[in-house]
Amino acid sequence: MSDSRVINFGAGPSALPESVLKKTAEALFNFNGTGMGIAEISHRSKEFGAYIANCEALIREQLQVPPTHEILFTQGGGTGQFSAIVLNMLARHHLLYPELDDEHRSMDYVITGSWSKAAAEEAKRLGAGNLHIAVDARVYSKDGKSFDNIPPHGAYKFSSHDPALIYYCENETVNGVQFAKDETSPTSFPFHLFPKGKLLPLVADYSSSFMSRPIPRLADHAVIYAGAQKNIGPAGLTILIVRQDCIVDVDAAAKLGAIPVPLMVSYKTLAAKKSLHNTPPVLAIYMAGLVLERNKELGGVEYYAAVNQRKANKVYGALREGEISRVFRGLVNEGSGSIMNIVFEVLGDGAEARFLSGAEQLGMKGLKGHRSVGGIRVSLYNAISEEQTDKLVSYMQEFISQETNRS
Amino acid sequence: MSDSRVINFGAGPSALPESVLKKTAEALFNFNGTGMGIAEISHRSKEFGAYIANCEALIREQLQVPPTHEILFTQGGGTGQFSAIVLNMLARHHLLYPELDDEHRSMDYVITGSWSKAAAEEAKRLGAGNLHIAVDARVYSKDGKSFDNIPPHGAYKFSSHDPALIYYCENETVNGVQFAKDETSPTSFPFHLFPKGKLLPLVADYSSSFMSRPIPRLADHAVIYAGAQKNIGPAGLTILIVRQDCIVDVDAAAKLGAIPVPLMVSYKTLAAKKSLHNTPPVLAIYMAGLVLERNKELGGVEYYAAVNQRKANKVYGALREGEISRVFRGLVNEGSGSIMNIVFEVLGDGAEARFLSGAEQLGMKGLKGHRSVGGIRVSLYNAISEEQTDKLVSYMQEFISQETNRS
Repeated sequence: MSDSRVINFGAGPSALPESVLKKTAEALFNFNGTGMGIAEISHRSKEFGAYIANCEALIREQLQVPPTHEILFTQGGGTGQFSAIVLNMLARHHLLYPELDDEHRSMDYVITGSWSKAAAEEAKRLGAGNLHIAVDARVYSKDGKSFDNIPPHGAYKFSSHDPALIYYCENETVNGVQFAKDETSPTSFPFHLFPKGKLLPLVADYSSSFMSRPIPRLADHAVIYAGAQKNIGPAGLTILIVRQDCIVDVDAAAKLGAIPVPLMVSYKTLAAKKSLHNTPPVLAIYMAGLVLERNKELGGVEYYAAVNQRKANKVYGALREGEISRVFRGLVNEGSGSIMNIVFEVLGDGAEARFLSGAEQLGMKGLKGHRSVGGIRVSLYNAISEEQTDKLVSYMQEFISQETNRS
Repeated sequence: MSDSRVINFGAGPSALPESVLKKTAEALFNFNGTGMGIAEISHRSKEFGAYIANCEALIREQLQVPPTHEILFTQGGGTGQFSAIVLNMLARHHLLYPELDDEHRSMDYVITGSWSKAAAEEAKRLGAGNLHIAVDARVYSKDGKSFDNIPPHGAYKFSSHDPALIYYCENETVNGVQFAKDETSPTSFPFHLFPKGKLLPLVADYSSSFMSRPIPRLADHAVIYAGAQKNIGPAGLTILIVRQDCIVDVDAAAKLGAIPVPLMVSYKTLAAKKSLHNTPPVLAIYMAGLVLERNKELGGVEYYAAVNQRKANKVYGALREGEISRVFRGLVNEGSGSIMNIVFEVLGDGAEARFLSGAEQLGMKGLKGHRSVGGIRVSLYNAISEEQTDKLVSYMQEFISQETNRS
């Protein structure tokens, strides 16, 4: 099968390990000796019950999720969570502070790219609480309008009273900016700005970086969520890590004036039945479980942190070479670049098309940038190997010399 | 592969055709010659765009969906729709009748089993509008408390003013009752009670009977929805047929006092981007497409209507034999029985366990009734062949003579 397959540098849905695809192809006919395929077996069977419990254990172990946090499986992707976090966290705020009016239920959003911008728009659209932009990275961009940076720590203006939520997107898939993992870095998330010893209402979208490296300050988060279709599995599965104080009685909150929360959007429904209130996406969870097992064998998030950093360094290295030769132009400031999604332009008339078609001839696909940004985007999720990355890097170098010779 | 597989009479997730599993196993590595697997390809690729458009066309053709209705693909299952229908249909009502208070926004529910009861509870829980039980089948049951019947036409009391929605569940998976497809039957849904020439706010849950036979009066429905995991595909995909006047501006409605609708719950979001506002469950849609292609080859819903009726007649026949011998007892009134899920008890000490273990020895699984009803449940979804049904029927007959000889 391998021969006919391309290298998929797409931003998501994206490449999965071939070993996972092979096991899935077998399990479609017979899951764990049950005589039923994994797409056919009841979610209430003891075999699947054991499987989903193991998925949870694998995540808990690999990310060191403390017992204060539940791990939940749901549907609807990151976009579904844009609404869910607002509704659940506002419900929590109503229960904590029943007397406040909406104006004093601040929702602090850190805007660093298309996805955090969309999340903030949904908070505003839902129309309760008070959307507060803690920082907008465009203000700190080279041209005053691009998402090309992680702002400096001094730029953040969080609400002084207890906000209902504080939101950030750890890795911006479209724009290719990511918070640094090292807290001493000027492009890290400014955890130090928050008071210590408080249960922070900190919400993070980890959709495109989940399981690619350890999560800094995981225990300080109220909610971490991730669509599966980048590093974990197929589209149609969303993984949540929710601190227990954020799993609240949304009906009691609605009686106090919070927005009524649809049953499946409520973290309480999900947690009460261990993600089995209704039929979960069994097949997607199965594939995610295989990926998590493979991660464990390879060495977990520490292994991926090292490999992914090396992969990114190599691509950024080729990009810098191309910048010197004026063949490429990076779209993100130094220190703000994502290790998962690297975005750049190919300079010169028709050069982008030449770059893409040359890559395609070598069996490398999915390199076209997001329609809102243009250019090239290289997505280096966990399933992309170092060897595959090397092939791209060689091609980038070859392309640089070709283009240099043209001019 | 076939040898190791059991016959899966489970209620869902449930059996899928082996030809569909085989094609899926191949497409996991390479979808339509793209060199990428179906779980890895972008939902925005032209190949997947063409595929989902074809899925829509197949449903439209097979169910004769008129151009007044959109076909949408989403996530969250039937339970997700319990909330979505309330929020979208109340929003529509607010736009139609902005001046009314909640008390006059009636939501008429027809309760015939566990699932319609759960849907009504969600309507009540969301706390706006006025839940009106048009009929509760338990009132017409033999013991006054069971869901064992479809009530007579005279039993329905719909709201006289325009309700926000009128809800029924076509087939009750847990209880095994289903509306008759023939409108002249006393156990059909009473379409004739509604005024002609009006756009009815009629909502139907078709989760466990979708694509098993034609949908009576499809064009009169506001919303028809179905989780895929019974007759169509794996869990994690929900199919909607929505009349265009029910795709409303939920934000405008919220300004008039309707409950704010989360982005992914809004039919407007789904319809505006042709189910591609966010990443859809690509793999599940692929498998559903394969099932729909196979349906077409076999002869569509007319083919299944005939086969499914024959399969059900055979099982009900064996059940009647067992009732005469006092080995089985049906749990549903004559004329109300589902052709998809047939529920009955096995009489006598330890007899149920004997029935289940004997079936399992013959490679037939998933026959245990729902925990709330007990007994046996035989699910005869499209993927269960007539031959597989015959095997069960033979076993039922053999079991009857064994049990008769015991006593």
